[in-house]
Amino acid sequence: MLGIEGKRLEYDEDGMIPITVTENLKAISMSFLLPDPESPVIWRGPMKIGLINQFLGDVQWGDLDYLVIDLPPGTGDETLSIAQLITGAQALIVTTPQEVALLDSRKALNFARKLNMPILGVVENMSGMLCPHCGKPIELFKKGGGERAAREMDAFFLGRLPIDPNMVICGDAGTPMVLKEWDSVSMGPLFEIVDRIEKRMG
Amino acid sequence: MLGIEGKRLEYDEDGMIPITVTENLKAISMSFLLPDPESPVIWRGPMKIGLINQFLGDVQWGDLDYLVIDLPPGTGDETLSIAQLITGAQALIVTTPQEVALLDSRKALNFARKLNMPILGVVENMSGMLCPHCGKPIELFKKGGGERAAREMDAFFLGRLPIDPNMVICGDAGTPMVLKEWDSVSMGPLFEIVDRIEKRMG
Repeated sequence: MLGIEGKRLEYDEDGMIPITVTENLKAISMSFLLPDPESPVIWRGPMKIGLINQFLGDVQWGDLDYLVIDLPPGTGDETLSIAQLITGAQALIVTTPQEVALLDSRKALNFARKLNMPILGVVENMSGMLCPHCGKPIELFKKGGGERAAREMDAFFLGRLPIDPNMVICGDAGTPMVLKEWDSVSMGPLFEIVDRIEKRMG
Repeated sequence: MLGIEGKRLEYDEDGMIPITVTENLKAISMSFLLPDPESPVIWRGPMKIGLINQFLGDVQWGDLDYLVIDLPPGTGDETLSIAQLITGAQALIVTTPQEVALLDSRKALNFARKLNMPILGVVENMSGMLCPHCGKPIELFKKGGGERAAREMDAFFLGRLPIDPNMVICGDAGTPMVLKEWDSVSMGPLFEIVDRIEKRMG
């Protein structure tokens, strides 16, 4: 999605050098360590935790405004390790609006609270769309569930992102949408959410 | 999604008694062991493997035609344990059609092959939809990618399932859609896939 597939990690005496995506975005991923992008990662928890440790300690990030860690769904080894290793990490919970997804989001909120991790907020993703032919609204995965779950659990609601076919196209092309599709339907809501996150993080 | 939320597991001297969903469907889930449905499961890999062992060995399934194990995305501890514990288990890979999802599906196929697990086939889920207002086709997550990936990797393609808003509604209501929405858009393709699976499993 960032257009850095197939890159290889470089090292020097100070550690791993992250991949530069744009002037203000660097990234690191386990996929850079694999022989090819289609190799599966057949690792049990303890090996993953070792790598997470290395990614936190041995990467030459330089001065960062934000470090964003994109975790797998659920409350497994990876999430638990991050919660325990990074003091002051905040949880940003992204959910779709339907009930079966909200159940997992409520678990994630309870997980963060049990581990004393501050909750930055909840984003409701895939929240409705407009038919590209007739322009009428379609609530594919329902709507409003993320906001309701945030309110019920006393967490901050950061906003809704509509389903945006340009997001799929940009993701597959390896071009972050914010660099390209400024007039697309999800850009306004996306920047509002970013503003709210910046304000909440001070 | 099966309408069994909040049920509690019962035991007798022969082990755990699975929850009866319908006359021909029994189910077991970790959620039955939790104090409430919103409790997170904060377990590391080894504890999960212990529970998977128990679910395979200590449940009174009786005579089964099929045992379906719904695993989290990716190739982590749970999937690795199942591959190692159940001789003759077959992998059924469900993907959405866009490139970023196919990358994970190819990893899953390579994972199954490395572990000598036979591959039952690939299902392309969320493969297009019809606008409920104007009836025109919308290819939200693109279309055909699952079939292409299956062909490229020499795996059997089981079929496509369109996005079906009734699936969301039935899932949230806890009513399996096959019991209710026989005229819904995804029912035909679903039964074709089931037929192909039955034939392939003999």
